[in-house]
Amino acid sequence: MKSTLPTTKMANAIRALAMDAVQQANSGHPGMPMGMAEIAVALWSGHYRHNPANPKWLNRDRFLLSNGHGSMLHYALLHLSGYDLTMADLKAFRQMHSKTPGHPEVDVTPGVETTTGPLGQGIANAVGMALSEQLLAAEFNRPGFAIVDHHTYAFLGDGCLMEGISHEVCSLAGTLGLNKLIALYDDNGISIDGKVEGWFTDDTPQRFASYGWNVIPAVDGHDVAAVSAAIAAAKTSTKPTLICCKTVIGKGSPNLQGGDKVHGAALGDKEIAAVRAYIGWDAAPFEMPADVYAAWDAKEQGGAAEAAWNAQFAAYGAAFPAEAAELARRMKGELPSSFNDVLASAIAACVEKKENIATRKASQNAIQALAPSLPEFLGGSADLTGSNLTNWKECVAVRSGQPGNHINYGVREFGMSAIMNGIVLHGGYIPFGATFLTFSDYSRNALRMAALMKLRSIFVFTHDSIGLGEDGPTHQSVEHVSSMRLIPNLDNWRPCDTVESLVAWGAAVQRKDGPSTLIFSRQNLPYQERSAAQIADIGRGGYVLRDAANAQAILIATGSEVELAVAAAAALAADGIAVRVVSMPSTDVYDRQDAAYRAGVLTKGVPRVAIEAGVTGFWYKYVGLDGAVVGIDTFGESAPAGVLFKHFGFTVENVVAKVKSVLAA
Amino acid sequence: MKSTLPTTKMANAIRALAMDAVQQANSGHPGMPMGMAEIAVALWSGHYRHNPANPKWLNRDRFLLSNGHGSMLHYALLHLSGYDLTMADLKAFRQMHSKTPGHPEVDVTPGVETTTGPLGQGIANAVGMALSEQLLAAEFNRPGFAIVDHHTYAFLGDGCLMEGISHEVCSLAGTLGLNKLIALYDDNGISIDGKVEGWFTDDTPQRFASYGWNVIPAVDGHDVAAVSAAIAAAKTSTKPTLICCKTVIGKGSPNLQGGDKVHGAALGDKEIAAVRAYIGWDAAPFEMPADVYAAWDAKEQGGAAEAAWNAQFAAYGAAFPAEAAELARRMKGELPSSFNDVLASAIAACVEKKENIATRKASQNAIQALAPSLPEFLGGSADLTGSNLTNWKECVAVRSGQPGNHINYGVREFGMSAIMNGIVLHGGYIPFGATFLTFSDYSRNALRMAALMKLRSIFVFTHDSIGLGEDGPTHQSVEHVSSMRLIPNLDNWRPCDTVESLVAWGAAVQRKDGPSTLIFSRQNLPYQERSAAQIADIGRGGYVLRDAANAQAILIATGSEVELAVAAAAALAADGIAVRVVSMPSTDVYDRQDAAYRAGVLTKGVPRVAIEAGVTGFWYKYVGLDGAVVGIDTFGESAPAGVLFKHFGFTVENVVAKVKSVLAA
Repeated sequence: MKSTLPTTKMANAIRALAMDAVQQANSGHPGMPMGMAEIAVALWSGHYRHNPANPKWLNRDRFLLSNGHGSMLHYALLHLSGYDLTMADLKAFRQMHSKTPGHPEVDVTPGVETTTGPLGQGIANAVGMALSEQLLAAEFNRPGFAIVDHHTYAFLGDGCLMEGISHEVCSLAGTLGLNKLIALYDDNGISIDGKVEGWFTDDTPQRFASYGWNVIPAVDGHDVAAVSAAIAAAKTSTKPTLICCKTVIGKGSPNLQGGDKVHGAALGDKEIAAVRAYIGWDAAPFEMPADVYAAWDAKEQGGAAEAAWNAQFAAYGAAFPAEAAELARRMKGELPSSFNDVLASAIAACVEKKENIATRKASQNAIQALAPSLPEFLGGSADLTGSNLTNWKECVAVRSGQPGNHINYGVREFGMSAIMNGIVLHGGYIPFGATFLTFSDYSRNALRMAALMKLRSIFVFTHDSIGLGEDGPTHQSVEHVSSMRLIPNLDNWRPCDTVESLVAWGAAVQRKDGPSTLIFSRQNLPYQERSAAQIADIGRGGYVLRDAANAQAILIATGSEVELAVAAAAALAADGIAVRVVSMPSTDVYDRQDAAYRAGVLTKGVPRVAIEAGVTGFWYKYVGLDGAVVGIDTFGESAPAGVLFKHFGFTVENVVAKVKSVLAA
Repeated sequence: MKSTLPTTKMANAIRALAMDAVQQANSGHPGMPMGMAEIAVALWSGHYRHNPANPKWLNRDRFLLSNGHGSMLHYALLHLSGYDLTMADLKAFRQMHSKTPGHPEVDVTPGVETTTGPLGQGIANAVGMALSEQLLAAEFNRPGFAIVDHHTYAFLGDGCLMEGISHEVCSLAGTLGLNKLIALYDDNGISIDGKVEGWFTDDTPQRFASYGWNVIPAVDGHDVAAVSAAIAAAKTSTKPTLICCKTVIGKGSPNLQGGDKVHGAALGDKEIAAVRAYIGWDAAPFEMPADVYAAWDAKEQGGAAEAAWNAQFAAYGAAFPAEAAELARRMKGELPSSFNDVLASAIAACVEKKENIATRKASQNAIQALAPSLPEFLGGSADLTGSNLTNWKECVAVRSGQPGNHINYGVREFGMSAIMNGIVLHGGYIPFGATFLTFSDYSRNALRMAALMKLRSIFVFTHDSIGLGEDGPTHQSVEHVSSMRLIPNLDNWRPCDTVESLVAWGAAVQRKDGPSTLIFSRQNLPYQERSAAQIADIGRGGYVLRDAANAQAILIATGSEVELAVAAAAALAADGIAVRVVSMPSTDVYDRQDAAYRAGVLTKGVPRVAIEAGVTGFWYKYVGLDGAVVGIDTFGESAPAGVLFKHFGFTVENVVAKVKSVLAA
């Protein structure tokens, strides 16, 4: 503690700001900030190493609220400690385009490391950050130069601990020995429905011990010294630490504390007055005594900490210039200058080879082509490495005490995806992780969060349709590709051959402002011949693959159905019907092209038939009411893939008939 | 054990059938059946109470494979013990329309209780079944008449235990004290990527102890007597039991056992021959010695068990005729004969009241109207009861040792949904459970499984759009309604007022062959006047709410945007433009109407504009390339709802302009 102000007053400053801001918005969550105020004092004034003047300092500690509804706690801390977050910003809590939205949002508020609210994902992001720190430290630190050396602190509550994802990620964090991860559990015994004892009776310390964590149980969460001592002890552990803090939700509210009513609603003027009297807080709403600011101010200490690190980094740069430059590049998220050439060469090699292989294999070839010159690649799979083919020759498995660049995430799809988001948020790596496409369902909200946060997470999904075959309808995607297309800012790619697969990989790597899904087949797909201009147009998401003079119809297809479209077009040509084939690996990217380009691909007025081994509903956006879609609007079946494609009408005959019926209409 | 055949031979029969069927299909998973063969012997020949002649016997024990990829284990058991599953069926493993699909599918194979494969959901279904048993027993059993009194047995593996959902549901099972749930863990130390020690090092016994389970650790899974003794001990526990069985995956395969290669691929002819030699199995593929059949045959014992129960149930029926009839009705899934009248009266009352309330409140009113005459209603919420409004006046919370009809599921959306599926599969209840619409993402694969299994699970989702307001984009759905419409066999309802909300509830309850989602607003919505014919047409999913002679355009809207469509139509009428308004609460149900009805609602050739506070992509199915959609193709913002609707263009002015631009095109 650098200040002589009683810690009670520092904590009460948080309480006042939280309750007043929620009251002003008439919306929000006062219970958590009031209950975790002393914990915040212990961490932020005793341990948290950060510089309010530079929220992007590379080696700052990371701090995040997994219980993001308590956002006013974080905003209060940022304001009080000297970040660029004014009292006017706090007054605008939860208002349009303010810097203080309802839940913390990264890139909106300086000092906020991730967007939280969907419970359990914050602690997953924290695991990703702690993992990044561990791996970067192993890669870049040198004797005497602990350049990457920080902690990741997460606050979490009962909600996060009930969510399944907390199991997935905390189990993995234990296995990987992420000892710089310190989680502080707000054990207040209350969730929205009331006392948790009716629905949540886990012995949480025992649970986390079973994961191989260091558990510090039964800490009084309102005793700043006790919490601070626990954090100090945690920093010496060889395991991740859970500090279990017994707290009173809404502490300071004489009539509501300890109950569920203080969780998520404004206290009301009367209770707010009662709080002021109860905790002895005289200042008016949004007024803060100077001694409080003085006690909380972290600018000087933070500036000194960063300056010391900067000096160390300069010395490191002198001793290890290549490493220093590389670390700086990677943390900025810039690709190696060689990237475009490497990609172009790899495409040229694909064109040369003309391989008829599964696109999941084409994906592995793409990874193999790119990985040697992309040291930031950090691959992985949710226990399907040999099926997803996300590994490459030189990759090294990450294990406890063994750094590497391929992660066996275990059967933890949601955890994997949210950890990947944390890895991107930390900086230094481009993560990709895989599972079967159908199990994108398990991780769906993490894809959404990646899209919302504009993160370069690359989600690889293989076995993308009934082409998966015998495993049957539980494993066969029908709705997934279309349904992911509905998530804003998510670029989805379903390539048809080796070249499209490689271009999709290139696009995903080059995309700095959002996530991509790469969707691949289990089964072999034929190589498609293209001109150089056509190859260049793949990156536009949709392009003319086979044209015909005076085309009477346009066939639009993706992935494994492009082959069928090409064959159907040939059959139609034999019948005297000229048909254009459009390959549309990414509708998302295609939709961003200018109107002129799009009009050149899907000519206005020409009837269209879309073909995709999935649900049809989405495709009317491209074929309209007068077009048709060859798809599947039921679940699949357990049978060999060839049998299924025929059964569900993915045949030349059926496509030809559909085109003719559309032309006859 | 009723037989004198060595249990080794009984187990080897499973091994032979599993490896031969996988070999014949050249696809499948031999490792689990070969590794769990002795466990299966212990359970099925010593404890499992079932009648092969009647797989639907009300009081049978439930048995399910949460590790569903080991389906051949179950098929072998069903065949050997006397179910209607022939050797020809086994030979057709994984072939089109066979009774032996790649993963177990309920209603396809007699004796299969649920469809599994997506890991972790089987154990969740089992929790639902055990909970149903406990609640039904409390409701229907009488002194001397333990009519409902069975166990639920689940097999599970490392994959299930890594999945987050296993945490959610096992935690809740512990809290609720579901002591008739007995899970057998196939602890073989192997998952698809290899030895789990690299990514899964939980102390699983300790973990389950932390949930309040009875844990029986370190059982030799190849010692039939030891496993049987553990099951016997489990049956006496007051807690759910996890029996941890150490096993060797693929046991019996001399060159592959204990490794990941035996998990999910055919062994090959050479290794199969080696297995035969190694375990001393002389019979040819798909031939089974008579003594093996004799040892496994469960028909006589099962028939006697059911006969005894039938006699008891007859006596129960004599003593408690109303209860017996009610239990029989409920288990058949038939609604009370009064249901239609109750629903009609409730609709009449809504029409009378003309309330302008949030549809989540209208939903609660609907529940309140129906629940007193629907004793099978089993409500719940994932810790948002007061927000989702799934409770009603007379409901009683389910607690450990306290039966009831409303479940506080805790913050466990996925677990809740998969437990609900288990409740439906067991029979006796119509479950509904709720969360915010955005968190449907967390439970998405359970919605899919409900649709695939054709279960009457009712998923309630409130706070359905930017109308949620200040909580911001993490909590505001934009893509969810449309993306759920893409799941086959899922009926999605987004009602616009009290009457539509009630009709939607009625449809969900009456639908016996599939799940429904009921999607409700946070904010108040105005009552819409309708004729009796219009009210009758709500149930058709889409209908003309406001017509206009010679309509020049059609506005299609759902939920909170119906109000806007009506207002825009009035404004357009004032401008001399006649517009029809179609309310489309369920596109899924509308799509099932005959062509004549649909043509009467969306007249061919009349330009259309759809309005929904969500993504636009799906709506082109109804408006075509020449229509327009007023929607949101980005994420939301944190601000009051009114501000957001205006910001995102949900205004009369914008809709009017869109209609005019469509008419001008």
